[in-house]
Formats: sequence, structure tokens, C-alpha cells
Amino acid sequence: MKILIINGPNLNLLGKREPGVYGNESFESYLEKLISAFPQLEINYFQSNSEGAIIDKLHEVGFSTTGIILNAGAYTHTSLAIADAIASISTPVIEVHISNIYAREAVRHHSFIAKNCKGTICGFGLKSYRLALESFLTEN
Amino acid sequence: MKILIINGPNLNLLGKREPGVYGNESFESYLEKLISAFPQLEINYFQSNSEGAIIDKLHEVGFSTTGIILNAGAYTHTSLAIADAIASISTPVIEVHISNIYAREAVRHHSFIAKNCKGTICGFGLKSYRLALESFLTEN
Amino acid sequence: MKILIINGPNLNLLGKREPGVYGNESFESYLEKLISAFPQLEINYFQSNSEGAIIDKLHEVGFSTTGIILNAGAYTHTSLAIADAIASISTPVIEVHISNIYAREAVRHHSFIAKNCKGTICGFGLKSYRLALESFLTEN
Amino acid sequence: MKILIINGPNLNLLGKREPGVYGNESFESYLEKLISAFPQLEINYFQSNSEGAIIDKLHEVGFSTTGIILNAGAYTHTSLAIADAIASISTPVIEVHISNIYAREAVRHHSFIAKNCKGTICGFGLKSYRLALESFLTEN
Amino acid sequence: MKILIINGPNLNLLGKREPGVYGNESFESYLEKLISAFPQLEINYFQSNSEGAIIDKLHEVGFSTTGIILNAGAYTHTSLAIADAIASISTPVIEVHISNIYAREAVRHHSFIAKNCKGTICGFGLKSYRLALESFLTEN
Amino acid sequence: MKILIINGPNLNLLGKREPGVYGNESFESYLEKLISAFPQLEINYFQSNSEGAIIDKLHEVGFSTTGIILNAGAYTHTSLAIADAIASISTPVIEVHISNIYAREAVRHHSFIAKNCKGTICGFGLKSYRLALESFLTEN
Amino acid sequence: MKILIINGPNLNLLGKREPGVYGNESFESYLEKLISAFPQLEINYFQSNSEGAIIDKLHEVGFSTTGIILNAGAYTHTSLAIADAIASISTPVIEVHISNIYAREAVRHHSFIAKNCKGTICGFGLKSYRLALESFLTEN
Amino acid sequence: MKILIINGPNLNLLGKREPGVYGNESFESYLEKLISAFPQLEINYFQSNSEGAIIDKLHEVGFSTTGIILNAGAYTHTSLAIADAIASISTPVIEVHISNIYAREAVRHHSFIAKNCKGTICGFGLKSYRLALESFLTEN
Amino acid sequence: MKILIINGPNLNLLGKREPGVYGNESFESYLEKLISAFPQLEINYFQSNSEGAIIDKLHEVGFSTTGIILNAGAYTHTSLAIADAIASISTPVIEVHISNIYAREAVRHHSFIAKNCKGTICGFGLKSYRLALESFLTEN
Amino acid sequence: MKILIINGPNLNLLGKREPGVYGNESFESYLEKLISAFPQLEINYFQSNSEGAIIDKLHEVGFSTTGIILNAGAYTHTSLAIADAIASISTPVIEVHISNIYAREAVRHHSFIAKNCKGTICGFGLKSYRLALESFLTEN
Amino acid sequence: MKILIINGPNLNLLGKREPGVYGNESFESYLEKLISAFPQLEINYFQSNSEGAIIDKLHEVGFSTTGIILNAGAYTHTSLAIADAIASISTPVIEVHISNIYAREAVRHHSFIAKNCKGTICGFGLKSYRLALESFLTEN
Amino acid sequence: MKILIINGPNLNLLGKREPGVYGNESFESYLEKLISAFPQLEINYFQSNSEGAIIDKLHEVGFSTTGIILNAGAYTHTSLAIADAIASISTPVIEVHISNIYAREAVRHHSFIAKNCKGTICGFGLKSYRLALESFLTEN
Repeated sequence: MKILIINGPNLNLLGKREPGVYGNESFESYLEKLISAFPQLEINYFQSNSEGAIIDKLHEVGFSTTGIILNAGAYTHTSLAIADAIASISTPVIEVHISNIYAREAVRHHSFIAKNCKGTICGFGLKSYRLALESFLTEN
Repeated sequence: MKILIINGPNLNLLGKREPGVYGNESFESYLEKLISAFPQLEINYFQSNSEGAIIDKLHEVGFSTTGIILNAGAYTHTSLAIADAIASISTPVIEVHISNIYAREAVRHHSFIAKNCKGTICGFGLKSYRLALESFLTEN
Repeated sequence: MKILIINGPNLNLLGKREPGVYGNESFESYLEKLISAFPQLEINYFQSNSEGAIIDKLHEVGFSTTGIILNAGAYTHTSLAIADAIASISTPVIEVHISNIYAREAVRHHSFIAKNCKGTICGFGLKSYRLALESFLTEN
Repeated sequence: MKILIINGPNLNLLGKREPGVYGNESFESYLEKLISAFPQLEINYFQSNSEGAIIDKLHEVGFSTTGIILNAGAYTHTSLAIADAIASISTPVIEVHISNIYAREAVRHHSFIAKNCKGTICGFGLKSYRLALESFLTEN
Repeated sequence: MKILIINGPNLNLLGKREPGVYGNESFESYLEKLISAFPQLEINYFQSNSEGAIIDKLHEVGFSTTGIILNAGAYTHTSLAIADAIASISTPVIEVHISNIYAREAVRHHSFIAKNCKGTICGFGLKSYRLALESFLTEN
Repeated sequence: MKILIINGPNLNLLGKREPGVYGNESFESYLEKLISAFPQLEINYFQSNSEGAIIDKLHEVGFSTTGIILNAGAYTHTSLAIADAIASISTPVIEVHISNIYAREAVRHHSFIAKNCKGTICGFGLKSYRLALESFLTEN
Repeated sequence: MKILIINGPNLNLLGKREPGVYGNESFESYLEKLISAFPQLEINYFQSNSEGAIIDKLHEVGFSTTGIILNAGAYTHTSLAIADAIASISTPVIEVHISNIYAREAVRHHSFIAKNCKGTICGFGLKSYRLALESFLTEN
Repeated sequence: MKILIINGPNLNLLGKREPGVYGNESFESYLEKLISAFPQLEINYFQSNSEGAIIDKLHEVGFSTTGIILNAGAYTHTSLAIADAIASISTPVIEVHISNIYAREAVRHHSFIAKNCKGTICGFGLKSYRLALESFLTEN
Repeated sequence: MKILIINGPNLNLLGKREPGVYGNESFESYLEKLISAFPQLEINYFQSNSEGAIIDKLHEVGFSTTGIILNAGAYTHTSLAIADAIASISTPVIEVHISNIYAREAVRHHSFIAKNCKGTICGFGLKSYRLALESFLTEN
Repeated sequence: MKILIINGPNLNLLGKREPGVYGNESFESYLEKLISAFPQLEINYFQSNSEGAIIDKLHEVGFSTTGIILNAGAYTHTSLAIADAIASISTPVIEVHISNIYAREAVRHHSFIAKNCKGTICGFGLKSYRLALESFLTEN
Repeated sequence: MKILIINGPNLNLLGKREPGVYGNESFESYLEKLISAFPQLEINYFQSNSEGAIIDKLHEVGFSTTGIILNAGAYTHTSLAIADAIASISTPVIEVHISNIYAREAVRHHSFIAKNCKGTICGFGLKSYRLALESFLTEN
Repeated sequence: MKILIINGPNLNLLGKREPGVYGNESFESYLEKLISAFPQLEINYFQSNSEGAIIDKLHEVGFSTTGIILNAGAYTHTSLAIADAIASISTPVIEVHISNIYAREAVRHHSFIAKNCKGTICGFGLKSYRLALESFLTEN
């Protein structure tokens, strides 16, 4: 069972950027914890600040990997192209957000990608990624 | 650790109502599976079609129980009063939806309650409740 | 052939409330006339000012009665939950209004429930109910 | 008692056009059934695809006939001029629609003419016309 | 100096239609007064309830007559095609309205044709036509 | 002179809920002060989290009591049915709010009920109720 | 018969300001022509760039003069206070504009004052004032 | 204890202007009653039709007087500058309206100044001023 | 293979009307060139300024001709009735525009008919018609 | 005569992605057919999922190639930067779409780039590209 | 080289008003620093809380002074009349703001005057005025 | 003191692209003038047409350089991701625009990035960059 976690723009700064909103831990450090916690999964990771590179990656893995966990960052709210990419592939995609996007500015309340994803998990801090991984492990 | 699951309007018909959207299992039958799966939790259940009764229940348990999992059904999209009730209590509330509300009509894309909840999980079918329970069990 | 007429909020005041808009006859008095006029139908009546109670009643009768005539009053314009209840049951529902809602304030021009009802009859005064009953009696 | 039924644009194709939405019967064939069913009424019929011709007809009969049943088709949603014509005449006009316009695209949810009509009947298929005729026969 | 007055839909009912808004005088009777009052002008008159016929008339006279006075009635607010016709011809067009359209419903506050007309005169009752005629007689 | 104070959803938590917004005093404790301060008035009190129950109460007292002071809480912004109930009764209703609703989120800036109330008093903390009581005591 | 012409902000620059839009003649020079052309009228003139001063002037003359011709300039589109002033006085007010405001930016398409004026004349250049004066001289 | 009452545009015509909306009493005559009724207060009065003059007055007294009662008239709905002035001073300001602004046209439903005022009292006729004065006299 | 070209309102003035936007050639002259260029096609032509006449023509040929090329002119942006007519017939319709409608005013950016047409070609001048004809001749 | 075809995001998946909407043929296979069909043209091809790379390519060829055919995919609806790039170069650009974008979701009805393109061809499947090529070959 | 700095409403309170937003220095004290820093410029200063007085001043100096630096305060967002005044004069006007208006409430994001000014400088605190002065001193 | 100037999409064409809007000078040539004019600053330059590359650059220098001057071109109006990047770094960013964006199309009136920048300078042609550099050199 192979899962790819894709992080979008500015998430490479996690732990450094607006810690009041996003916490102090870097994603790399958290990723190690996830890998230990889910030994039965092969977890890969990709981060890019480029909309095009995220689409390329979705195409590359989207017909062979088991699942994709996508935190598209600000592109969640502006990228119809990523939404189309998700609709174009066969691997199911879970949308995650670290913060509660509904408790932030209005522009963050609308997600272009949500309707093409299998489900959405948001507001649990980094734990949102863990819950997304869980979702691949249980039947119902 | 005590968790209350609250289901809002029409969710008593689960398994009977629009199975294309909501599946064929009744919530009561699913609840038994959850109780077996999480023996370390005391899981209680409340359903009502009445906005006022849901507010009363939130007040009743909202200062003493560990967590609340709320599927407010259609009231998600129309009830500022339930949103206020969530803000008024100290127990954290997780918003869940069975279907992917972003893949449905526009009126279901806005949630009054999301901003006052700790997090949102939607689109995983009944598994959304299971993931919400998981969220109370892991630290991060 | 069993028909249930459901009246929503404030319609218990009919004959007393804004007679310029709704006329002087109480619904109970009009109901007697309807029952006499349609001896071939079993006509029952339910009124509530509570959104939740109307949903409960729709669930209760919505899989066994022949037809429902619903004047949801102000909930017509604010209740997605009643709209969902109508979609959840198998009995056909006819939406009726006493006044011409399109000749009143803008907020009354949109009906949440119309799209889930079989048809709508509005503006004929109390005669709207009579026409709704007729609709169950003729083939085409 | 003279009643004129006016059908607007594209309704001459009834039975031929989008049968999934409008059914397979031509209006002429249905009209014969109505004439038989209501021997006490003189029922006349007019159809035009032209907004101006419908206004001309409303003016022509609108001070002498007992009632008008108007299915303005797409002009329902775009013609302020027909709405003005209805307001200008003394004969009461009943608005009818074959399909449930509220279950269709958003542009069909607003009627320019509704506020000037006595009442609206929509969604009952061709039976909508029959109910409109009934409305002229009963006192209340 | 030849002037054509064009009246749009429902204005043939002037004197008969909504006298509270439009007054009791028929346009024909008023036209005679205008003709007497302006002996130096050749005043012609055309009325139609049809958008297409109004466009045809604008094309017919729009390259040879001195001026056109147009009360497009409800088409003022819905006809881009008449607006285009005005832009397509070389004769200047004056927009007139009998009632103060800004004191009526919101749909009458926007004119499609105003921007292509030389000027607008509204709210003076039938006198609006007289002032429009005056506008052709004075230099400044 | 009989006055009924009606408090809507979540106001039973006053003193407990968001004290930064609503203060630390429970309404019951404040009510006692009001009763002492206005010995010439018979002041009754009703609180409910249910829209339907508030409508029922308005109907029950709305033809016999002298005045009603209504803090409809979140229903202020979502309930057309309560607005209709106020329009349906003969007792004058004063709308009050503890906080300044115009200094809060946009959804709280629109009141469905204001136009049917005699007047509105908002932003004075619990003193808003006292001023509403005063309004019944002075002529002008 | 006394008529007051009131010009609002920036109209003191007429002849100097944007001659492509407003022409090259100063209002003072045009006013002399008007006074000569209408010897039967006492024509007075007031100009101010201040909203408050225009309101003061409307109050001062608005119960004694025969008519007011008001070109409120940009205040046309932003001043509810001038609109209220017009509604508060008994003298009829004619709204005039030199340019065709409907052929300019969208912000100039809405007039706050139009609904309280007797009529509107716009787009005739300075001749708009002359036509407004004419409107006081003819019966119909 | 010094209180300044400020009245905005057109309120100098009180008693004369639209008596159906604002009543027949002039504010000067009502002010005398208020001064008699509240001998413990020094009540001053200022009226202006000018937005700038109202701002000047707020600045002049806004750091030394006890309280300000402001009926900004139409400027309530158009003046961000007065709203800023209220935010700039230290004296608390109470917003009052004579009529129920929510029962009037939509443009009067939004107040620029409400969010910067301590509270709002509207709809009680001239009594709104009396209640505002009361608000300075009681602790809670 | 029979193709009907339908031109809507004002297109009879082509070559005469706004040559900066539409060019100097009349459609009749261009049609001759098209007929010579496509000897394998029977090309017919119909022009009307009347919405109703265009609908009549679509009905008349819409079940027997091979294809229709429709430049609905301004009715593109206002006629739901023509859109319905296109949906009602079986012949495929190609929407064409001479000018680039997206480089013009906002009202011309929305087409009622586009969604019911097979395809749209716009902005190529008269060549838009030629490309539409080509579309019937090639398989892919 | 050199023509560059540029395909935007997700169009590399053509034949694989949503075949119900876009068909089963890959663009590469179709391109070979086009090259054979138009031997007189030098046809080049570029595809990228990156907004920036598309802009770079437009700059690179936009002053020397004869024409560009651009299917910007989802960037059509979100990229003002590509629209600016088209305005910045001298080569004419034709906008093409495979599907009828007006028969899809509302977000696809607005094109940022249309107004800067010479023309638009949409809805003909892959044939849209062929028609765009034709447009460069014929004079009129 | 003569420069006039114009400050609009409430800016006379600078140093006193909302120091968190605007800082603690009075404008008069800052002006002295500017005068010392730019000895080659004749810098004059005008402040008014009145829209009309600002327009009068723009007219007075707007054909003779070298440049105007305008902080219109709240009138930036509400005054079309000041925008017109800027368009009416020949002196270039620079718009300045002390705070970053885009980081404040939505009503402050739109400037009526920006499009008529030469340029805008905002968010640098009082330094915004200094940069505006610099702009008159350098060629490019 | 190190300053990085970042130019976004299409600004590499400066001097070539729409000279009526942006002037004839290339940015490289202007940059040399700036470097000479500010010998006390180390000025670096980066241009990219890619949103992702601009974010990467902001991250790279955003914790070590003294200041950033950003002309994000069209991304100003569409990129929430660049806005987030600015919020994520510690170096202050100045937003500049060459043209007056408020005098252009509506889509250019809203900036996603403005609220996260220290200040904005727009409309001064290339001089906007010079003023931004000045802003780093003066205290106040």
C-alpha cells in the first residue's frame, strides 16, 4: 500500500511560518513520526511551490499509487487546474488542511479541489495527515 | 473518556433515505460497530430533527463530556443558533458529514458551524465518524 | 386514499392574523368544508410551529400515506431540513400557499422545498388546498 | 364562462420536444380531453412563439373573457412586457407550468409574470391546466 | 423636419391601463394636441407590442427622418436588440417615459437603451413627449 | 401592566457563555434586579432554545399582554417564522440585544424581526432590557 | 413664477472642466441666455460644492418657490441626504444632467435623488436646463 | 453630567417634513420637555445639514463631554467619515433614530456608524432620545 | 447536405451598421462568396429582427435540415426562448459571432444559447460563418 | 507559415482523462492527422502544466511565428498572467476548447484570455483545432 | 515649485486618534520636519473635515500650483465629488494614506479617487507624505 | 543594506509590451540607473513568469535580505500563494506597480498581496521603484 503526501506552496516553511496558525514542527520531522506509526504503509512525500509541478506529480503517480493526501495550501482556493488534475487520475485523493480554514479569511472558505476529492479533513493541526492515513486502513 | 455523537435532521432515516447519497446502513447498526471498535471510549448517541433540542443537548453535555461529534445535517447550512451553542460550551466539537458536501448543491458548501468546531471531516461515508473518534485518541 | 394536510408556523392563527393577506376564515372551519367536499378521501390535518415537529411528522407518515399537502409557511423560505425530509420520504408532497408569494417581499420568492415537491399551487387563497386535493383525484 | 388558454414559445412542439421533461402528448390532443371534461366551459386556445403576439392576444381578450390560463414558457423568465400586459387587463390570469420549474436551472426559478397573476400552478404535467380550469369553477 | 414617435408594448392601452400610473388620456387624443402645438413639425406615430417590429421600424426610418422619440415601455429594461438598433442608425433617438421609472420597482431602474440615445426625459406624464419635441426645436 | 421578556437560543447560558461578549451575570440574577426596579410592572420571563416554542409563546401571550421584550439571539438573523409571528399578534414587541450586533460578524447585521418590531435597543449590555422596560412607561 | 436653478459640485468649473464631456460654455454665460429666453420667469441661481449647503438651500426655498431645477453633479450618486431634503420640501424638483449619465461609468447610472424628483432630463447638454424650464410652462 | 444631542441632515424640518414618518412635533419643542424631565443633566443641542460640521462638533466636544446622542439622519447610511470621527473621540456616542429604519427602504438598513457607537436605539419616535438619556443615568 | 444560416436582429444592416465593429460588407454579398466556395452544400439564408420568427424558423427546419448556423445577435444575450427552441429540435446548431463578444461590454459575455449549441465560433469577422460551414464537412 | 499549438494543464492526459468529456484519442495521435491534412503549414506543438512555462513559450515565439492556437485548459478561467502575455505579443492567438465550456460548470463560462485573442472556437471536439488552422488559411 | 498637502476628515486629530493605527505624532509637528527636509519646495497645508471645502480648495489651487498631495481620509471611499474635482483640475494629485488601507476593513479597499490621481502611496506611516514629495523631485 | 527587486510575469517584456501603458524603457536599462542613483544599497534583481519560482525566491531571501520590492504583475490579482509567501517571511515587502492599476480594468483593482506588504506605491511609471528604494533609506 503506497501513499503519497503532497504539500503545496509555503508548506516547506512549516515550523518557521506563522507558528500561531501552523505550529512549530517542521513537516519533515512530523513525517518521520508518521512513517514510524504506520509501518504497514509506504509513505512518500513531495512538496512544491509550483502549481504546474503539483499537477505533474499528480499525473505521474495518479494511476499507480494507492492514495494521495494533498494539502494544496493556497492553491486550494485558486487552482482549477489542480482540481482538474485530481478529476483526471484514478488514485483517490484526500484533501487535508492543518488549520481550520473556515475560521480564517473568507477567501479560504471555498475549495476548488474539494468536490473532486474523496473526502476532506481539516483543522486538526498536523494530526489531519494522520487521520487521512487512517482513512486508507479501515474498511468503514 | 466520554464521547457524544449527535446526529441532526433526517439522519434517523439513514439506510432508508437516498441510499445513493448516504448508503444502506442504519446509524444504529453502524454505532454498534463503533462501540466494539473503540472499547476504551464511552460512546453515547443522540438524534433529533429539532434545532432547539440539539442546542439543549449541546448545553447539557458541553461542560462535562470529553468530546462531541456532530453531524448537523441540513442545520449545518442554516443554523447560526447551533453555531452559537458550540461557541458557548467548553467541550470540543468535531463536525462530520457522510457525503462530500462540496460535491453537492451550492447551498451545502457553506457551514455555519465549521468555524466554531475544532475540525471537520467529510466525505468518507460512515467512516467519517470513525475518523472523528480516532482524532480524540492520538496526541498528534 | 389518505391525504395529510400539514400547516407550518403561524397558520394556526389563520383568520386572526393579517386578514388582508390571509382572509378571515380559520383553517379548521375550512377543513370541514374540504372533508365534506371530498368524501372519497380520508383527510387528516397537522399543524405545528416547530420545524423539527414537521420533519418528524413527514417521517412518520411519509412511507404509508397517499399524499401530503404542505403549506410550510415561513419555513418554505428558510428550511433546508424540511426540504431534505421531503426528499427522504416516498409519499409525494404538494406545496401550497394561500397568498401569491411572488407578489410579496423578495425573501418569499425563493422556496427551499419546491424542487423536492411534485408540484406547487399558490395564490388561490384557501382554494389552493382544494386544488391540491383535486390533483390526487384525476389521472391527467 | 369563456376561458382562453395561451401557450408561449416552443409549446407547439409538445410531445415532440424533450419528452423526458414535457411528456409525449401533443397539446392539441390534451385540449380535446379538457374540452370533454369541462362541458360547462367555452375553452379557446392560442399559441405563439412571439412575445408581441401574446401581448396582442392578452389585450384583445383581456377585458371580455372570464379567465386566462397562461403558460408563457421561456418568456415567463424574460418578459417584463407580458407581465405589464397582465397588469393592464381586467381578466384574471392563472400562470401554469407543465414541469416543476424549481427543479430545473436557476434562470427558471424567477417568474416576471407571477406577481401580476392571480395564482400559479406548476409541476403537475399537463394536469396543471386542468387544475387551473378547476380554479374557475369552485368558489373557495 | 420629420419626427417619428414610437411607442412600445402596452402603450396602446394608455388611458385604459393602470390610470393611477399612466393617466386617463389615450395617446391618440394626446397626439392630436401635439400636432396642433407644433405646426412646424411633421409628426408621425407608430406603436407595436413586438420587439422585432420596433427594430424594423427603427431601421426603416433611421437613416432619413430628423428625429425619433421612443418610449420603449417594458422593452426599455429587457431589449439589448433595440439598443443595438438605435446604435445602428444615424437618426438621433430621445428616450421618454411617462412615469418616473426610478420611483417604481427596481427592474425599471436600468435602461438598456439609454446609453445609445441622445438624451432621456422621464416622469412628466404625457408632457415628456412634448419636451422631447421641444428638444429638436432649440439650438441650445 | 404585564410585560413578558422572551430570551432565545443560548441566552440560558448567560454569565457562562463568552463573558467577553455577554458579561458575567446570569439573566435570572439580573431579572430580580429588574423586578425590584419596576414595582409597577408585572414582569414575566420565558427562555427557549427552540424557534417553534418561541412562536408558540408569542401566540399565547400576543393578544393579551401589554408588551413583549424579545432577544431572539441567533434566530434574529435566521427566523422569518418568528418575524411572521410578531406580525401576526397585536401586542407590541421590542427587539433587544445585549451586545452591539453591528460590531460583530456580518451575518449578525441583518435582523429578520426588526421591521415587525416597534423598536430596537442594542449594545447596552443587560441595560438594554431596562431601557426596553422604560419605553413602556413613558408617553413620549 | 420663481424658479431656482441649483448646481452641485464642480459645476462652477463648467467650460473649464473636461470640455469633451461638458462643453466649453460657462454656466453663468448660459444662464444669461436662459433669462433672456424666459422673460416670464424669475430665474435664480445657486451653486455649491457642499452637500450641506445644497440641503440648506433646498430647505430655505423649498416651501415658497415655484420650482427647483437641480443638477446635483456627483452628489446625485452618493447623497441620500439630498434625496431626503427633496422629499422633505413641497416645491417640485426637476433633476437635470448635462451629459448622458447612462453612457458613462456604472457608478453614475444610479441616482439617489431621482425617485423623489418630479422628473428627470438628461443628456441634452446645457439644453437640459432649458427643457426643465419649459416643463414648468406647459400644462401637459 | 453634560450630554450633547446632535441631529443631522433634514432633522431641522422635524414636525414639517413627512409627518407620517417623523411626527408633528418640532425637535426644539421636544427638547424643552427633555430638559425639564432630566434636571440632573446639562443637555445641549446641535443640528447641522453638513457632514463636515458634524465631524467638527464631534471633535470639539468628544474629549470633554459625558455623552453624545447622535441622530445622523441620512449620513448614518453614507458617512464613513462620521463613523471615523466617533472612533477618534473618547466620549461614548449613542445612535438614535426616530423611525424604525428596518421598516423602510433597504438603503436605510445599513449603518456606517453603529459599530463605533456604544449602542443603538431606534423606532420609538422622539422617545428614542429620552431612552438614550436614561442610558446615561443607570448603572446597569 | 442542407445548411441554413440564420441571422438575428440588426444583422440586415451589416455593412451599414457600426463598420468599426462589423466591417463594410453586406451579408448578402458575403453569402454569394460562401455559396461559390462550398458548391457541395445547399446553403439557405434567413434573417429576422423578431425573436418569435427565429423560433418559428428553427422549428420549421429543425427536424429535416443537416445543420444550422445561427448568429442570434443581441438575442444571444437575452433570449431563453431561442435557447429552448435549439434544445427542442434535432438539427445541430452552431453559434457564430462576427465580433469577439468577449472584447465588448459585459452584457455580451453571457450567451443563453451556447450551452444548447454544438459549438461556438466567434471573433473571425465574416470568416466565422465560413469556419462553421467547414465544421460540417470534416469528420474530425 | 508557422503555427504553434499550445496545450495547457491536463491536456497531456487526453484520451486517458474523462473520456466522456474529452474523447479517447491522444493529442499526439490527432496532431499527426493535422500535420498530414495541412502540408502547407509548419505545425509545432507545446504542452505544459505550468502557467509560467506557457507564458515563457508565448514570449519566445510571439514575435516571430505566424499564429498560435491556444487551449489553455483550466488556466483559461484563472490566469490573468497568460491573458497579459497574449496582449504583450504580436502574433495572433486563437483560443480553442475541445468541450463546450458553456455546457459545463459556471466557473468555466468565463475566459480571462478571450478578450485578447483574435477569436474563439469551442465545442467541436478535437476538430476545434482543425477549424483554428483553417482560419489562418482563408482570407475571409 | 509649490506643493499643497491636503488632509481630509479626522486627520486633524492625528497623534490623538487611534494611535495604534496612525501613530503619536501630530501632522503639524511632522510638517515642520518635511519643510526642513525639502528646502527647495514651497509646501503649504490645508485640512478640512468638509467634503465641499476640500473641493473648493482643489479648484482654488488646481490650475496654478505644481502638485497636490491628498490624504482624503474616509472621503477616499465615499466621495465621487472629490474624484470629479481631481479630474477637473490640471495640477497632478498624489493620493497618500498613512495606514495600509488594504489591511483594514473591506470598505477601505476601494478608492473613488485613485483612478484620477497620478499615483498612490500607502502604508508607510507619515513617511507616505515624504515619498510623495520625492516623487515631484525626480525625473524618473 | 541589501534590496531585492522581484518582477513578475510579462515584466521581462518591458519596453516591448504595450508601451502606451508601460513605457519604452527596458527594466534592465532602468535598473542600471537605479544602481547608480543608490550607491549605498546593494540592489539585486530577479524576474520570473512563474508563480512558484517567485515564491521560491521569496523564501530564499526572505529571512536575510533587508527589503524586497515586488511588482507581481498579473499575479497581484490572482495569487493567494504569493500573498501567503509574503506573510511567511520576515523581510518587509513593498508592492509596486508601474501603471495606475485603479485606472485600468476592474480585475486589476484588487490586490491579494497588498494586505501582507508594508506599503504600496503605484502609478509613477518606473519611478515607482525609485520611491520604494527611498522608503528604505529614510526613517520617517
